[in-house]
Amino acid sequence: MARSKADFTSLQEFQESGDRVYLSHLSVDCVIFGFHENSLKVLLLKWKNGPWCLPGGFVKHKESIDQSAIRTLKERTGLAEIFLKQFYAFGDPDREKGKRHEGTWIGKRFVTIGYYALVDYSQVFPEPDLLSSECKWWDVDNVPELIYDHNQIMSKALEALRLSLNDHPVGYNLLPEKFTMPQLQKLYETILNEALDRRNFQKQMISLDVLIRLKERKTGGAHKAPFLYRFDKRKYDKAMKQGLRLSF
Amino acid sequence: MARSKADFTSLQEFQESGDRVYLSHLSVDCVIFGFHENSLKVLLLKWKNGPWCLPGGFVKHKESIDQSAIRTLKERTGLAEIFLKQFYAFGDPDREKGKRHEGTWIGKRFVTIGYYALVDYSQVFPEPDLLSSECKWWDVDNVPELIYDHNQIMSKALEALRLSLNDHPVGYNLLPEKFTMPQLQKLYETILNEALDRRNFQKQMISLDVLIRLKERKTGGAHKAPFLYRFDKRKYDKAMKQGLRLSF
Repeated sequence: MARSKADFTSLQEFQESGDRVYLSHLSVDCVIFGFHENSLKVLLLKWKNGPWCLPGGFVKHKESIDQSAIRTLKERTGLAEIFLKQFYAFGDPDREKGKRHEGTWIGKRFVTIGYYALVDYSQVFPEPDLLSSECKWWDVDNVPELIYDHNQIMSKALEALRLSLNDHPVGYNLLPEKFTMPQLQKLYETILNEALDRRNFQKQMISLDVLIRLKERKTGGAHKAPFLYRFDKRKYDKAMKQGLRLSF
Repeated sequence: MARSKADFTSLQEFQESGDRVYLSHLSVDCVIFGFHENSLKVLLLKWKNGPWCLPGGFVKHKESIDQSAIRTLKERTGLAEIFLKQFYAFGDPDREKGKRHEGTWIGKRFVTIGYYALVDYSQVFPEPDLLSSECKWWDVDNVPELIYDHNQIMSKALEALRLSLNDHPVGYNLLPEKFTMPQLQKLYETILNEALDRRNFQKQMISLDVLIRLKERKTGGAHKAPFLYRFDKRKYDKAMKQGLRLSF
């Protein structure tokens, strides 16, 4: 949950009559995970003189909730063209403990819809909006205390990201175009935060049928050169759309 | 999306001032799948002199969205103690095509949060509420045209149910306490609507580590008596909570 001032001339006007532009009781929050070189981070904003939070905002009367998540993320952090996946709605009536602005639309109860994305954090350049003093990446294992239930929202997003590895391939736009099986394994291990068995991993990955093994091998290492792979983009996109399935 | 009159003396009063009791812009809809003897059905309500729809309702100011789904399902169909799983929020601004009651809170745009459940339909006894003329099970492959985007909500719930087989065990409360591997396979085949390889299925199921093979075998058949299994309830509950994982 957060405030966008784009359609108002002052914060006070926004607080008093934001429901002219936005639906009441409904917000969106974005959990942006960043991967780069075997480290997993999450993007957080810091209110000016206030706590850290997830980048979030409200739903305009004529936009879809998906559009509002995309717009909000762009307005608040500068990140554009990010594929956001809706993962859960948080609707506990007491989720916004310590909320202010009583008596205004913004002080009322909000149900928030969570979206997540996984990006290469070396490729995006977040910038705080006017309401925030900082916008930066935190290690997922070491996030500060966030506003309201935002720690819980982040945990649930991480759980959704991890479970998504059962249903959908991961790695496109996160790995170089050509990569080795150990590089792919490192990505999975970083997301799951655990070591995986090398042979079993390779067998599972090949059974997903989204990889093409190239004729060339990686060069330059001291050991036997490992095979290079790339994603079969057509099969990868199909699996992203339809979902993978346990090979019963 | 649907109307509950419980806190109002007339439908007109509900239409005019329902937002005294309920949050505006937010509804819940329940997709109740029923399994029994290799057939998969879905529970639908019919408006008096109107279309068929999913059982749904609104969120009271002081209740969680999960509580509102449970209450709504009970008020509208009589079904109680059903484990509902939230699966998606539907937030297209045009999702309620042909909606009436313009100018009232109920005529405004609603984002609806979808919940699903899978029950043994021979064990529950749905009853329509005062607003509905019928409440009955339909084959999932043969549902009528539903109000608004409810056909799409049902399809998305079926997709979520099918994908959930990757992450979570299924069968408890749907199969007899002791069951054979072919009975379990039939359940999966019915949900997935496709035939599965017997040996591969058995191997996958055993690898999930939620089954206990009993010493006794099923008797009475003409062929060699198959083994009986039951769920290890502790492991089953743990897997329901934490999620299964592809065995990397």
